[in-house]
Amino acid sequence: MRLAELARTTGVSAATIKYYLREGLLHDGALTSATQAEYDVSHATRLRLIRALVGTAGLSLAQARNVLHAVDSPPESLHDLLGRAHEVVTPPGHADVDTGEAEALLDRWGWPLDQCDPRVLGGLAAALDGARSAGFVFPETVLDAYGDAARRMAGAELSKVPLDSLEAAIRYVTLGTLLAEPVILALRRIAQQIASQERFEATRAGGSSAEPAGASPPPS
Amino acid sequence: MRLAELARTTGVSAATIKYYLREGLLHDGALTSATQAEYDVSHATRLRLIRALVGTAGLSLAQARNVLHAVDSPPESLHDLLGRAHEVVTPPGHADVDTGEAEALLDRWGWPLDQCDPRVLGGLAAALDGARSAGFVFPETVLDAYGDAARRMAGAELSKVPLDSLEAAIRYVTLGTLLAEPVILALRRIAQQIASQERFEATRAGGSSAEPAGASPPPS
Repeated sequence: MRLAELARTTGVSAATIKYYLREGLLHDGALTSATQAEYDVSHATRLRLIRALVGTAGLSLAQARNVLHAVDSPPESLHDLLGRAHEVVTPPGHADVDTGEAEALLDRWGWPLDQCDPRVLGGLAAALDGARSAGFVFPETVLDAYGDAARRMAGAELSKVPLDSLEAAIRYVTLGTLLAEPVILALRRIAQQIASQERFEATRAGGSSAEPAGASPPPS
Repeated sequence: MRLAELARTTGVSAATIKYYLREGLLHDGALTSATQAEYDVSHATRLRLIRALVGTAGLSLAQARNVLHAVDSPPESLHDLLGRAHEVVTPPGHADVDTGEAEALLDRWGWPLDQCDPRVLGGLAAALDGARSAGFVFPETVLDAYGDAARRMAGAELSKVPLDSLEAAIRYVTLGTLLAEPVILALRRIAQQIASQERFEATRAGGSSAEPAGASPPPS
């Protein structure tokens, strides 16, 4: 197909396609004359992957290039490939954070630390550090629940990595990692409201002991 | 104590304290002369709550005012009070999103929808909508794992709401809701790396069937 048809098929403008061609994100078509090239389904597939990475997942062009590079020159194992895609969607920095508390936590749970990207571990350390500097202490059972929840979510997610193509696997890992975050956080808030109702409303009728000092009594 | 000592005790500058007094976030001290007021421990407690809400939790002054208003005129039940604090830290908007898919999901799990703040439900609907418009489909078992994880996390969190004072309960709910988010997301990424290792590395030695079509064979 010609460039115009490729644009129509994928919903990506001809100008954007030309830009991706110039930047080397999209491979050249087969030249049919000095000024015309022929594109095929591989170009459409690649364009959809680029749009998913740049548009939906919100990656920068440089980040998308890193993922695409991993797709084009896949490392030995799928684990390494997924790790590279995962790395791209991991916030940078946190290199100067003391990871002692984070390591102790994972160690307590028996999580294998040698599997853990230092930047991801740094992200956990920074999050724990932020809470501590706010004077907020997570109860141990609550942290345990977070760790347990994380393992369950990741186990379900990884069992569903599509294995029919590298593109599908990369797409699933990058998009799934990013797009699920607001879903998980929204579900947590809904579950909190339900749990609050269960804990504090159910006991109200019976002259509850779950009212804090200083709460107004119900009007009589 | 005088204003200067209150500032020293709490680490909040005198100018900021005066600003909070003018804005009505902090109650006036007892006047000891036309230009001097005496402050006590209630002012220090209140200031620490304001700083936690505005500084650490990143609330705007208007949002903090809403939480403080709830503390000052607590509704009948602690559930309602926590709900109001929770509402403040919930992103606004999403009113125009179709919540049908989100409702169907919660319904499938048997979650009581009548407990659910429309804005929180709208947040879930928007998150699901964003994924769908990206062409990303969550496998049903993965969504189920998210719901299960959310219930477990919320159950652990709500069982630890401190009941010794309204301030402590409000602080726990607002700060805990916000500060735990990066912790949960970082733990999920670490767990994904471990699960990836378990799924794709453990099987590599034995000529795995977990390699996708198109992956390069290991160099010989």
